[in-house]
Amino acid sequence: MTASSMSKLDMLLETEEIRELISRYAFHLDMNHPKELASLFVEDCEVVYGPNFKAEGIEAYAKTLEGVGSYFVATSHHVSNTVVEFQSPDKANVRSILYAWHRYRRERPDSHVWGQYHDEVVKVNGQWKFKRRELRTTGSKDFHVKEMVPIGRAE
Amino acid sequence: MTASSMSKLDMLLETEEIRELISRYAFHLDMNHPKELASLFVEDCEVVYGPNFKAEGIEAYAKTLEGVGSYFVATSHHVSNTVVEFQSPDKANVRSILYAWHRYRRERPDSHVWGQYHDEVVKVNGQWKFKRRELRTTGSKDFHVKEMVPIGRAE
Amino acid sequence: MTASSMSKLDMLLETEEIRELISRYAFHLDMNHPKELASLFVEDCEVVYGPNFKAEGIEAYAKTLEGVGSYFVATSHHVSNTVVEFQSPDKANVRSILYAWHRYRRERPDSHVWGQYHDEVVKVNGQWKFKRRELRTTGSKDFHVKEMVPIGRAE
Repeated sequence: MTASSMSKLDMLLETEEIRELISRYAFHLDMNHPKELASLFVEDCEVVYGPNFKAEGIEAYAKTLEGVGSYFVATSHHVSNTVVEFQSPDKANVRSILYAWHRYRRERPDSHVWGQYHDEVVKVNGQWKFKRRELRTTGSKDFHVKEMVPIGRAE
Repeated sequence: MTASSMSKLDMLLETEEIRELISRYAFHLDMNHPKELASLFVEDCEVVYGPNFKAEGIEAYAKTLEGVGSYFVATSHHVSNTVVEFQSPDKANVRSILYAWHRYRRERPDSHVWGQYHDEVVKVNGQWKFKRRELRTTGSKDFHVKEMVPIGRAE
Repeated sequence: MTASSMSKLDMLLETEEIRELISRYAFHLDMNHPKELASLFVEDCEVVYGPNFKAEGIEAYAKTLEGVGSYFVATSHHVSNTVVEFQSPDKANVRSILYAWHRYRRERPDSHVWGQYHDEVVKVNGQWKFKRRELRTTGSKDFHVKEMVPIGRAE
């Protein structure tokens, strides 16, 4: 089944649910809720935070979340400019942009990340979930991660 | 009447109006329009900006707005990640997140607030309004208000 | 034809497309895609970035974009709080707010702009495009442009 069977209204209703998925991810990340975060991904997910910082499968991803609470005192993830492109009624590619602020437990300056999320989302049992989530980085300031996936800005 | 009588389309149409309410609040705050701001709240509203900084009723709230023009040269309130949960067709709980920038009249650094709005909104005479608005603070930098409601991030 | 012929659903579907237009503008600006950016505007467009920094017509606008790649290493444009007011089914006024971060090629601090976009958009051959785009500035820090259109905040 392709996306061509979807009416504009179908797409809008699904888009709203996909936006909610993205908002819940940010919320649970900022609240340090690793279980709720993991529940937003399918079992065979892939999460790419950097060229050398990936997780394949939900268990590997859940492990990357263990450090969130111990590393940061606080984070705030602001997502906007979301554009959804449906591949089929239950599969879509999503692009959005992120401004994230982080405060560390260790004595070091707050950090800022400006980036893009490139997501593949799938609808499973009536729920949109992340199949693949990749963070590309437009720029950062005082961020502890140094190797990021670039956005590929034209020269 | 419960929310179960609402179709997905009903919810989406109402959600759009609620998002507009939240956008108008930010706009009129940044424009220093206290009258327009107050008109977005019901008479018996409750506004909570901090544990010791609350207003009950629209007159008390209007008084808190008097200082906005004299205290700040400029503010910018950026709201995103909005999630609406309907209690009934004319009542909903809304969560969104805020990045706010402030420039003071007094000689002091610009301040930044990263937070969450937790709102109760009601539809009265065809218009969505704030019944209760609470700002919880994820973090801040150089902000003049020191006591904030925390977001309750898990340890 | 006036906007009164539009149902709420019509407006919502069109609003979604207008939001996408605004998101694409930010994306192509951050990706340094001048051709794709210009394609989002009608031939007889007007773009106002400051009181002395305007472009009339798509060719003049395209020229202003030539410097984007050489001036900045990176930019990130975060748009939210979008409110659409339809004049007719194919014409609308749109207000949104911007937080923009810029990193320069030259040795100088990153800059930040907090502002409002005031747009006139038109639907031509089934595609929403910018007819007029004006950036008003709430405030900025370390930005290289000094003369900006103010938002007109009440005193």
